[in-house]
Amino acid sequence: MLVSALGEEALIDQLRRLFAVTAPGVPTSIGDDAAVIDTISGHQMVWTTDMLLEGVHFLKTWQTPRQLGRKSLAVNLSDIAAMGAVPRYALLSIACTLRTQVDYLLEFCQGFCDLAGETGVAVIGGDTSASSDGLVVSVSAGGQVLTGKALSRSGARPGDSVLVTGYLGSAAGGLRQLQDGIDSGRYPGLQQAFIAPMPAVAEARLALESGANAMTDISDGLASDLKHICLASCVGASISRELMPVHPELAAAAAQLGWDLDAMVMAGGEDYGLLFTIGANEAPAAVAAIQSATGTPVAVIGEITAAAGISVIDEQGRQSPMPASGFDHFLKYG
Amino acid sequence: MLVSALGEEALIDQLRRLFAVTAPGVPTSIGDDAAVIDTISGHQMVWTTDMLLEGVHFLKTWQTPRQLGRKSLAVNLSDIAAMGAVPRYALLSIACTLRTQVDYLLEFCQGFCDLAGETGVAVIGGDTSASSDGLVVSVSAGGQVLTGKALSRSGARPGDSVLVTGYLGSAAGGLRQLQDGIDSGRYPGLQQAFIAPMPAVAEARLALESGANAMTDISDGLASDLKHICLASCVGASISRELMPVHPELAAAAAQLGWDLDAMVMAGGEDYGLLFTIGANEAPAAVAAIQSATGTPVAVIGEITAAAGISVIDEQGRQSPMPASGFDHFLKYG
Repeated sequence: MLVSALGEEALIDQLRRLFAVTAPGVPTSIGDDAAVIDTISGHQMVWTTDMLLEGVHFLKTWQTPRQLGRKSLAVNLSDIAAMGAVPRYALLSIACTLRTQVDYLLEFCQGFCDLAGETGVAVIGGDTSASSDGLVVSVSAGGQVLTGKALSRSGARPGDSVLVTGYLGSAAGGLRQLQDGIDSGRYPGLQQAFIAPMPAVAEARLALESGANAMTDISDGLASDLKHICLASCVGASISRELMPVHPELAAAAAQLGWDLDAMVMAGGEDYGLLFTIGANEAPAAVAAIQSATGTPVAVIGEITAAAGISVIDEQGRQSPMPASGFDHFLKYG
Repeated sequence: MLVSALGEEALIDQLRRLFAVTAPGVPTSIGDDAAVIDTISGHQMVWTTDMLLEGVHFLKTWQTPRQLGRKSLAVNLSDIAAMGAVPRYALLSIACTLRTQVDYLLEFCQGFCDLAGETGVAVIGGDTSASSDGLVVSVSAGGQVLTGKALSRSGARPGDSVLVTGYLGSAAGGLRQLQDGIDSGRYPGLQQAFIAPMPAVAEARLALESGANAMTDISDGLASDLKHICLASCVGASISRELMPVHPELAAAAAQLGWDLDAMVMAGGEDYGLLFTIGANEAPAAVAAIQSATGTPVAVIGEITAAAGISVIDEQGRQSPMPASGFDHFLKYG
């Protein structure tokens, strides 16, 4: 059935029932002008928002609607986690054309609901609308953190170790695989990294408890996200190419297909691992704590320097400036 | 200059500086993974979100970008106000084509910033992206309310008076004027109602203090919004056509141009006044309190009934059921 046959009111009724299970303790949720949420004494809230547009961030053929729903929430929870906060709330706005199948939307929302349930997030509101061209999804997410304990990007100090969770460039490899029409079974780990990223919520909490002093999620790519930390902290960094964690499938695909591995590892976006800094003495314990509790690989890739700028030491020990990079929505097609 | 020449990073830098003035007391705002906000002991937060799409909610020729920016925030603050809460925070996501002028976006954001400043709202975050077709705006807004004092739609009781602030159908008249290409100077009040609605923040606070027990903003049209209150409160309503507040320009335009005045008054959306219920004994004082403090007209249009359903009493005293209505994004063009 098309949404134009069902109508907006009936669709909202279905979404209200679907998401009600995620918000049992919320005083007022979907179905009023706004949702009412309780705050916790001694805590601050953190809020973020992200928009995903068909044709810009995704094609419908790349993943199932359920996967897309999960990812729409995941990329927001990743931002919440990167502040060291516990994800608590989400609002979901969807605009779609009148030719959209109701089943597609419901599957999308089921995926959103799945991840909300797994992460303890209450879906408390949203908006539905027609669009003239393609699916548009906008999500806002809120979380809670002990007052004063949020981890911004500005706390890195010279001598700190620079750490990364997960692999670098895997999502870029997965995207390339989709764009080039390579069989999805050939490098399933890369495909998974792109279409089904998991927000590093547990990893972030452990990093915070281990003493991390600056953190961000790797959404724009290492070069860009490390630059964000360095600029916010008024420091520089020196990182080693050979220490960067590369998924074996990405190394294989690059060798077999002639991909620019370095560019993917250093500038590929959407991995949604964490990039954080921590005193050099605390780094080994942080690596052990996160790896043992979550199974996620954690790598020390370099250190923070007092001198500005980011330098990369290659496998031969040569030092060069980090190439400028970072995805720019407006320049990309410009 | 086009956004494709400026680039996303440079645009975000400009927006960060623009919005910084709105958020002097926010611990972490635009420029990190998520914004950090303080919560107030004894208070709950309310959150809402709304998406506006070019070609669906607006055409660029209808208003200046500055007016559009104001309205994008206003429609969200209206939801916050309708909960009886004080607006505090907003996040703004914008997707636009690469052919968009930077000046257009900056003017849009200036309008958003203007209203944020006037209402004490901190713009704490957002997202920018390319779109393949037209401007897409998504706003989330948060507010604060004393714990347990949020005004939902579910508190109406039989015998309550039904009150409306502002005029009914004015925005529908303004939209019709734009769609039909009627000179904007002919009915300036109607045009203003559609392109520059003001959220009824002060009116809502006074309604709450006067003892209102159910409230919503009139965004979908009286018939639809009153139905929401009746369904949520398990009651019905009886309202009088002759008590409904109609802007003199709307009455004139309908007479001169043959518009269906009743349909606009009862079902026209986007007026963004308040619809609330209050004990009949408290109603006169509420009317006086709101009118004297804000200058906004307030009308008692009927009463809540124990029997379900909404009936309308016309000028001749005849009673008929409220016509089914309400804007449906998916059915409208279906």
